[in-house]
Amino acid sequence: MSIRIGILGYGNLGKGVESAIGQNPDMELTAVFTRRSPESVEIRTQGVPVLPADQLDHMENQLDVLILCGGSATDLPEQTPKYAKLYNVVDSFDTHAKIPEHFAAVDAAAQAGGKVGIISCGWDPGMFSLNRLYANAILPEGHDYTFWGKGVSQGHSDAIRRIHGVMDARQYTIPVPEAVEAVRSGSNPELNTRQKHTRECFVVAEEGADIARIEQEIKTMPNYFADYDTTVHFITAEEMARDHSGLPHGGCVIRTGRTGLEKEHSHVIEYRLTLDSNPEFTGAVLTAYARAAFRMNQEGMKGGKTVFDIAPAYLSPKSGEELRGKLL
Amino acid sequence: MSIRIGILGYGNLGKGVESAIGQNPDMELTAVFTRRSPESVEIRTQGVPVLPADQLDHMENQLDVLILCGGSATDLPEQTPKYAKLYNVVDSFDTHAKIPEHFAAVDAAAQAGGKVGIISCGWDPGMFSLNRLYANAILPEGHDYTFWGKGVSQGHSDAIRRIHGVMDARQYTIPVPEAVEAVRSGSNPELNTRQKHTRECFVVAEEGADIARIEQEIKTMPNYFADYDTTVHFITAEEMARDHSGLPHGGCVIRTGRTGLEKEHSHVIEYRLTLDSNPEFTGAVLTAYARAAFRMNQEGMKGGKTVFDIAPAYLSPKSGEELRGKLL
Repeated sequence: MSIRIGILGYGNLGKGVESAIGQNPDMELTAVFTRRSPESVEIRTQGVPVLPADQLDHMENQLDVLILCGGSATDLPEQTPKYAKLYNVVDSFDTHAKIPEHFAAVDAAAQAGGKVGIISCGWDPGMFSLNRLYANAILPEGHDYTFWGKGVSQGHSDAIRRIHGVMDARQYTIPVPEAVEAVRSGSNPELNTRQKHTRECFVVAEEGADIARIEQEIKTMPNYFADYDTTVHFITAEEMARDHSGLPHGGCVIRTGRTGLEKEHSHVIEYRLTLDSNPEFTGAVLTAYARAAFRMNQEGMKGGKTVFDIAPAYLSPKSGEELRGKLL
Repeated sequence: MSIRIGILGYGNLGKGVESAIGQNPDMELTAVFTRRSPESVEIRTQGVPVLPADQLDHMENQLDVLILCGGSATDLPEQTPKYAKLYNVVDSFDTHAKIPEHFAAVDAAAQAGGKVGIISCGWDPGMFSLNRLYANAILPEGHDYTFWGKGVSQGHSDAIRRIHGVMDARQYTIPVPEAVEAVRSGSNPELNTRQKHTRECFVVAEEGADIARIEQEIKTMPNYFADYDTTVHFITAEEMARDHSGLPHGGCVIRTGRTGLEKEHSHVIEYRLTLDSNPEFTGAVLTAYARAAFRMNQEGMKGGKTVFDIAPAYLSPKSGEELRGKLL
C-alpha cells in the first residue's frame, strides 16, 4: 500500500513536492490543500483533488503524512503545530533563530497526538545541517564554513522589488572563489561577510525611473546589501524573463580539522550542492523525510524530530538487507 | 562519567583511534589490548595499560565500548562477533562483498549479549555509504559515482612488494580529472575502470634488479593494474622515506539526478574528503560511532547496526537543544 501524502500550500515548494512524489513509487498524492479558492488552483497531477484547507480538520483516516509547504514567517509557526496533533507532518521551517521555539511547539503537539512532526527539512537547514553535525562529530577540533550560491535569494530579490521605481528584480548570492579555495586549503582563514560572498542584482526599472538612485538604495540597504560588494545591472523585462526565470541555488559546507597526537594531520570534509531548482530539490528532501515520518510512526515513535534524530535508513524505500548489500 | 573505551589491535588504525579519543573529552582510553606480547607494545597515551587480548574474556564491567582495529581479511570476521556478545563494539570491516555475512554474525552475537555492534564504520564503507544513501533517497532518478584518491592504496602497495626484486613500494590511486568534471557537469557519462582512475607507483628496487621486468610485471598484474593506466617510478630508499611516508587518501561520492514533471532540472550532490591520514580519519569516525554505540545501548537498544541505522545525533556529545540551536 502506498504512503498517502497531502500537500498544504501550492506555491513553488508545493509543486516541488508534487513532482517528487511522482518519482517515488511507494507514495501517492492524495490531495492538495489550499487556503485560496480551490477552483482557482490547477495542479499538475491528474485525478488528484484540490481541497480547502479546513477539510484537514477531519481527514485523519485518509492521509499518512501532511507536507507543509507554506512560508516560515507566518504560515508554518501556526500550521505545523496545529496539524502535528492530527497528522505526521514535515516542514521546511528555515528561520534559524526561531527553531528552538518552533520545535517545542511541534513536539508538544505531536506528542499529544501520537504523531511524528519533522521540522526544518530541506538543504539549509537540512542536508547542510546534517553535514555540519557529522563533520563536527568526526573532527572535534576544526572550523566550519558554509557558502551559499551561486543562487537566487528570494528574500533579497523581494527587498529590491520594494524600492520605488523597481518593477522586477532578481538577486544572486555568489561565493567568493578565493575564499572557498582558502578554506579548502586547510588554512582556516577568518573571513568577514564581505570576504565570503558577493551579491549580483538584475533590475527592471520603471520607465523614467532614477536609475542612479535605485542603484544607490540597493547598495546601501542595511543587512541586505551594505556589508557586501554588490553589483547592479539594469535589464529589460524581456531579458529578465529570458535569462533569469529559474530558481537555481546551492552551496557548500566545509569543515577543516586536525588529528594526531601533535595535530600534525589536516583533513577537509566538503559537501556541495549544485541545484537547478531550489524548490524542487527542497521538495525532494521533504518527500524523503515524509517517508521517514510515516515509517517511524508505524514503529510507535512520536514527537518533534529534526534531521538529526532520524536514522538515515528511514529515508530509503529499500530494506536493510538491500541497503547493506548495495550502498554500504 | 567518561565513556570507557578499549582498543583491540595497535597498528595504524589503533593509533588513529587512540589520538581521536584524546580529542573527545567525554571519553577515556581504558586499555589497549594486543595479541602480541604486551611488553613489546609501547603506546603513546601515558598511564594506560597494554593488556593481552585474552583479558577481554572478563572485563565486561570495565569497558563501555571496544573498538576493533584489526584487519578485515581474518581478524574482524572472528573478533567482532566474538566480542559483540560481551561489549558494545565498533569495527571498520571493509570487505564489501562479505558485509551481509559479517552483519548477520555480529547481529546474532549482539542480540544474544544485549549489546550494540556497529560494523563497517570509516569513510568507505562509512561516510561515503551514508552520502550514497541520503543522495539516493533525495534523488531517486539519477546516477552514483565514487572516485577514490589521490591516496595510498595499501593493498596495491603490498601487491607490488611481493614482486621479486622489489624492496619497497607505494601506490597512489588517482581520479582522472576529466572524468570527475564530466560527472559534475551532470552529463551522466558511462565510465569504464580505465577512464575513472589512474595508478602511480613508486618502487625501490634491489640493487641489480631487472627494472624493466618489474615495471612490466606491475603493469600487467591482473585485477590490480592491468585494467588501469599505470605509471611506475623507480626511486631510492631515501626518497621513499622522505616523500612517501604518509598515508593520505580521500575521494568523492557524487550523485547527479533530475527533478520536475518533465525531468527538466538537474542537480549535483557531492561529498568530498581530502585526508592527510587515512588511519587517523578512520579512527576518528570509529570513535564518534563508539559514542553512538554506548548511548544507544544505554537507551536499551541492541543488535547489529551500520551507519544507516544510527540517528546522527547519537554521534555528537552535544544535547538535542544545543544541536538544534547551533548546527541546524
